[in-house]
Amino acid sequence: MFKIMLSKEGSELVPNINIEDISDVISRENNLLWVDAISPSKNEMEKLQEEFGFHELSIEDALKPWQRPKIDQYDSYYFIVIYTARFIPEQVDIQEVELDIFLGRNYIVTVHGEEISELNDVARRWQQNISKLKPSAGVLLYSIIDSIVDSYFPLVDTLGDHIERFEETIFSGRQITLQGEVFRLRKELLQLRRVLGPQRDLLLHLSRMESALLEGDVRTYFQDVYDHIMRVTDTIDLYRDLLNSVLESYLTVASNNLNITVRTLTSWSIILMTLALIAGIYGMNFEHMPELHWRYGYPGVLLIMLLITVILYYYFKRRRWL
Amino acid sequence: MFKIMLSKEGSELVPNINIEDISDVISRENNLLWVDAISPSKNEMEKLQEEFGFHELSIEDALKPWQRPKIDQYDSYYFIVIYTARFIPEQVDIQEVELDIFLGRNYIVTVHGEEISELNDVARRWQQNISKLKPSAGVLLYSIIDSIVDSYFPLVDTLGDHIERFEETIFSGRQITLQGEVFRLRKELLQLRRVLGPQRDLLLHLSRMESALLEGDVRTYFQDVYDHIMRVTDTIDLYRDLLNSVLESYLTVASNNLNITVRTLTSWSIILMTLALIAGIYGMNFEHMPELHWRYGYPGVLLIMLLITVILYYYFKRRRWL
Amino acid sequence: MFKIMLSKEGSELVPNINIEDISDVISRENNLLWVDAISPSKNEMEKLQEEFGFHELSIEDALKPWQRPKIDQYDSYYFIVIYTARFIPEQVDIQEVELDIFLGRNYIVTVHGEEISELNDVARRWQQNISKLKPSAGVLLYSIIDSIVDSYFPLVDTLGDHIERFEETIFSGRQITLQGEVFRLRKELLQLRRVLGPQRDLLLHLSRMESALLEGDVRTYFQDVYDHIMRVTDTIDLYRDLLNSVLESYLTVASNNLNITVRTLTSWSIILMTLALIAGIYGMNFEHMPELHWRYGYPGVLLIMLLITVILYYYFKRRRWL
Amino acid sequence: MFKIMLSKEGSELVPNINIEDISDVISRENNLLWVDAISPSKNEMEKLQEEFGFHELSIEDALKPWQRPKIDQYDSYYFIVIYTARFIPEQVDIQEVELDIFLGRNYIVTVHGEEISELNDVARRWQQNISKLKPSAGVLLYSIIDSIVDSYFPLVDTLGDHIERFEETIFSGRQITLQGEVFRLRKELLQLRRVLGPQRDLLLHLSRMESALLEGDVRTYFQDVYDHIMRVTDTIDLYRDLLNSVLESYLTVASNNLNITVRTLTSWSIILMTLALIAGIYGMNFEHMPELHWRYGYPGVLLIMLLITVILYYYFKRRRWL
Amino acid sequence: MFKIMLSKEGSELVPNINIEDISDVISRENNLLWVDAISPSKNEMEKLQEEFGFHELSIEDALKPWQRPKIDQYDSYYFIVIYTARFIPEQVDIQEVELDIFLGRNYIVTVHGEEISELNDVARRWQQNISKLKPSAGVLLYSIIDSIVDSYFPLVDTLGDHIERFEETIFSGRQITLQGEVFRLRKELLQLRRVLGPQRDLLLHLSRMESALLEGDVRTYFQDVYDHIMRVTDTIDLYRDLLNSVLESYLTVASNNLNITVRTLTSWSIILMTLALIAGIYGMNFEHMPELHWRYGYPGVLLIMLLITVILYYYFKRRRWL
Repeated sequence: MFKIMLSKEGSELVPNINIEDISDVISRENNLLWVDAISPSKNEMEKLQEEFGFHELSIEDALKPWQRPKIDQYDSYYFIVIYTARFIPEQVDIQEVELDIFLGRNYIVTVHGEEISELNDVARRWQQNISKLKPSAGVLLYSIIDSIVDSYFPLVDTLGDHIERFEETIFSGRQITLQGEVFRLRKELLQLRRVLGPQRDLLLHLSRMESALLEGDVRTYFQDVYDHIMRVTDTIDLYRDLLNSVLESYLTVASNNLNITVRTLTSWSIILMTLALIAGIYGMNFEHMPELHWRYGYPGVLLIMLLITVILYYYFKRRRWL
Repeated sequence: MFKIMLSKEGSELVPNINIEDISDVISRENNLLWVDAISPSKNEMEKLQEEFGFHELSIEDALKPWQRPKIDQYDSYYFIVIYTARFIPEQVDIQEVELDIFLGRNYIVTVHGEEISELNDVARRWQQNISKLKPSAGVLLYSIIDSIVDSYFPLVDTLGDHIERFEETIFSGRQITLQGEVFRLRKELLQLRRVLGPQRDLLLHLSRMESALLEGDVRTYFQDVYDHIMRVTDTIDLYRDLLNSVLESYLTVASNNLNITVRTLTSWSIILMTLALIAGIYGMNFEHMPELHWRYGYPGVLLIMLLITVILYYYFKRRRWL
Repeated sequence: MFKIMLSKEGSELVPNINIEDISDVISRENNLLWVDAISPSKNEMEKLQEEFGFHELSIEDALKPWQRPKIDQYDSYYFIVIYTARFIPEQVDIQEVELDIFLGRNYIVTVHGEEISELNDVARRWQQNISKLKPSAGVLLYSIIDSIVDSYFPLVDTLGDHIERFEETIFSGRQITLQGEVFRLRKELLQLRRVLGPQRDLLLHLSRMESALLEGDVRTYFQDVYDHIMRVTDTIDLYRDLLNSVLESYLTVASNNLNITVRTLTSWSIILMTLALIAGIYGMNFEHMPELHWRYGYPGVLLIMLLITVILYYYFKRRRWL
Repeated sequence: MFKIMLSKEGSELVPNINIEDISDVISRENNLLWVDAISPSKNEMEKLQEEFGFHELSIEDALKPWQRPKIDQYDSYYFIVIYTARFIPEQVDIQEVELDIFLGRNYIVTVHGEEISELNDVARRWQQNISKLKPSAGVLLYSIIDSIVDSYFPLVDTLGDHIERFEETIFSGRQITLQGEVFRLRKELLQLRRVLGPQRDLLLHLSRMESALLEGDVRTYFQDVYDHIMRVTDTIDLYRDLLNSVLESYLTVASNNLNITVRTLTSWSIILMTLALIAGIYGMNFEHMPELHWRYGYPGVLLIMLLITVILYYYFKRRRWL
Repeated sequence: MFKIMLSKEGSELVPNINIEDISDVISRENNLLWVDAISPSKNEMEKLQEEFGFHELSIEDALKPWQRPKIDQYDSYYFIVIYTARFIPEQVDIQEVELDIFLGRNYIVTVHGEEISELNDVARRWQQNISKLKPSAGVLLYSIIDSIVDSYFPLVDTLGDHIERFEETIFSGRQITLQGEVFRLRKELLQLRRVLGPQRDLLLHLSRMESALLEGDVRTYFQDVYDHIMRVTDTIDLYRDLLNSVLESYLTVASNNLNITVRTLTSWSIILMTLALIAGIYGMNFEHMPELHWRYGYPGVLLIMLLITVILYYYFKRRRWL
């Protein structure tokens, strides 16, 4: 499906253009064309290829999913792959959505597999202000990428909340098996990081690129987006370190708990077995056991048992085993 | 064994060429020759050396197995070492197969120890389209390397499935000793990564190389293959991180389980030993134990035992030891 | 809120300037203006933008919190983001405070969300010596950044004291659950390191920057500040390594303690159960147990028990289990 | 001890040269001299210094053991330090032997502390073919270094066999304390890696060096040796990763085993203590215990005990504790 | 305190110079002055500043302790910070001592807080040979730095001995709590490494520096010192890896020991509890227990107990639990 938007001679919005007219439209320098293709068929992509004269490799990349974030330079245009991300809280899952962009001198073609809300926002703002803006593909590209990078911040905040919850759980002493969740979050961070790394390089490249397609000031703006994505990746790296730290702390907490439990086991085993031994001795059936006939034999033994209990208890208490 | 294929003057396929004629054939610029040598003998390699004028070092490298992936520049040709990989599921084993390529101005010589199915596919497609294609050694090299790199993707997917199965097993609570399998997969990933690293450098080199043997556009294609192998190595790296994460999670799960078990042991030991102590006390043979003669002594003691059990049970329950 | 300070023609301090006069004031080259904005409103920032002619991107960055430490070059000024840090001992918490600086040819604008005591110190010293100093924005910038970087040293010392206390606790044998505190300190170090890394790069940049705004000698001074921040980051890195080392040591200490406890448990269990077994045997009610009728059966059994205890005790002692 | 070999005017082998004649011999350009010094005394080294005009620093380095692998450039010669390695299987020990080489325009001086068999092989081959070879110090250097690097391959294979044996031992379930051996191998790998790292840099340097001493083609040969040493270091790195993996696997296997043992302990303790409690109850001496007088009291209790055993056994079986 | 030594016109040693004469002395090019300042007061440093014309920043750095090793270039001199280290065996402690050096065209000023024996050695040798040496500040600097770097070697050897002792202790099976010592050594290595890293960079810089103060040949000598410090840092890195390896081995040894202990506990618990259960059963007071009246009931039960012991013992033996 195509959404085709034209800013004609930098002043007028023409909403309905036929695909077949594209080559005419972009031949006039002051037009600015935006074609937004949502899960286009192979057929539709071939039409685009024809009208814009795209290289077959870039068309292939736009059709196959899961390209790496990158910027490829072709004769008359750039091919850019970038990713948005959203968090699905119920499943502790981060979903990356690929966005392919063809950037020409006076056109932009965006290709993606599913709706990207940030793209719709940019389109709406662009259409509303079309008469006030200089028709520049570079500025339009900046708007798109800026709104995509900014959409990472709420995602990162949500992740931070999750990690904080993990910390609290672990140090609260409550024994909860959160390894599954920690593992899943870790996995998502690894996957996100894998996308963000080359994306950052891509933005650095954009902010330094000497190209006729990006006039002077636009580079300053891309520098700003680069700073933003640096903050996102820094935070993701921090979160990965924190998650590792959480897991290590979990291991020391568990090891500490085990020590405490085993000490309790040892102390009480020794106390109770000693008492049972005494009872066992006076349960023996020997004929000649004078204590058995003593008047206060029984309370005496009970007293001795109590004494042993108290002594051992304080002994283990002092050794901090109880 | 040799398979010799000739595209004569860029139009005609000549299937059967004698090795001795090679030097003649490649002297004509518009011919394109492909010699595919499958586990050639030392003798056969020497014939190739003679006909093509290869340097003794490259012949030696082609004869000895387990070279590193690399590209060596000689006077009139390049010597390239590259690896394919296949997964043997029954043994959780990845098998790398070495492919040595001599790339000349108008010829390609491929040397390998066993059948490589990707190579046969490329050969078939080339023979079918021989009259339509420009006779270019660079394009032929691209076809070969592209189909080899693409063959990594199903392999990588299979590995991903294995790792996912590990995760599920660990967090399902079922106690399965999968360390052996995890270790073997880890080892395979390490070995694969060792081959892929220099292979990636090799492709970067190819996509940037200024050489008369690779005309303009071919470099763009190699850039594309480079992107593909980057995706493969990125995924392999991700998998290694995930496997480490799986192992660490395993340790925390195991540590957690141990804590639970030891707490059960401690709680029940204390309960049962206390009860046994009481039984032991009333099993003593003292003459003067008034309780023994009480009418309700026995049911009273049983009641006390029940009470102690209930109290201790709830005590340990509240401490989350049971 | 604004504090506006003017060194008029390099000799006279003019404390109260209207915002509206700023553009006039800075048009005279020998004036040096310092505007200190404490949590300015959006409105106030716009006035500054108007008077100084700041780029909208830098104004936006100054309004939004948590920028990365950086130096952005604009046409007529630099925009610098830097952080101070203070330690809140009660909460084992390091608080970073952002400071944004606009550095022009003859003015400095500092923007921050809360009072920064180091800034007040610099201002006081500047006002007192205003007639003796050359009016140089570069030197003023140096004073500010130098006093901020120097304020890291007491912070770092406090952290070092904490880590030393951890060490002592762990190796003293006292079983204290300090994982929570270690984790929190680790987290703070990670966050601090994240701010210090780019801050160091920023200072390296300042010490090497070829700019009309920083005359010759000032660069030498920034080189010195760079050395200081290198020492801070080195120490922070050392502390992170030490904390990891502390945690690992904790695990080995805990593992050692567990071994000792379990050996005690095993030794005493075997001893006491063996004795109880003997008592149990002579508690059996068989008719024909000759030992029961022996004159010295009872003391004999007690002696045997003692003997077994002594033998097993020395056996376990020799194996270092007790 | 010196072995002095001279290829006179590139045709004739002169075996016995006096040290004093060296300066004469090397003044004739077409001579090629090889002096092999085995654990030379300080005195002997000074004679060499005199004859060849070596710098005192290089003489000092050749006398003191354990230099780092390196190549130092002096006015008229290069000073090279390189290491051979052999495996002493009985002690799981890798022994590095230092070889110092002085490379001049038409001479080579090799200095080493003990016999190096590879050197003898090179010498023999050189002497046999002396009339056929061009007298080139560079080619001779290549022969020496090539045979040294090739001697690493069998060593590396032996190490691989050791690691494979470790794997098998660990996953076979047999409880063997192989930590000592693993540790020693790890240590040897660390030490070997420390020597190989700079050695690799040295070979890279040799393969790229623009020097009159190494004519054109020799560099291609050194490139080949560089590829070989890359393979060796790659393999060593792989082995280090595998050893770490082996140790981690060992920990998870041990943790798994502990879990299994403790579960067995807990299950049987609970079963046996419950049964003992019942026996203890009927061993009490209360007057009024009606069960004691029942006709089938005894077999009834035994039956109950059996029942409890069966029930608990299946309970623990289902929880996978037994 | 100052020690001032002057080599006048390259021939004569003048031991007692007044500080006030320094500016005169160094104005004559062929003089070579060495001022050695041991814990100088602020006042004394200011005198030096006056006489030599040092920049205030370098004076400040020389007064404040714990600078990073570095080389700062000023107009007419270099300011160098370097560290010596000594090992205090009783406390497993490495003490770093800072040495600040001002290197001018014909003077050297050394500033340090306590006696450095290496410095005294250099001074003595210099004074004895003063008439034979060319008066060169660069060569003097080399002598100082060379003797400082060489003093690291015995230190490094001592550390190696300590680590070897740790290894032996761990694998000897003796249970010694050496974590404290390992931790302290690790800490010392971390601190030493932190000093050595920039020190190495400093020496690399010196060996490559194009400066009128270091004439040609001196650079070769600094290259040699650089090789030495590389060996020291390589060894320190190796030791850190070994210490980590020691700690990891300790954990696996401990884990192995725990497994062995718990298996012993489990085996003997099951054996002894089973025997006690049998004794308990025949200690029950049921009226109708025919076995009690059998003639060989008692020895029969003892035999059964023995049988059970033997069977269980071999069962556990075969499972390698005992």
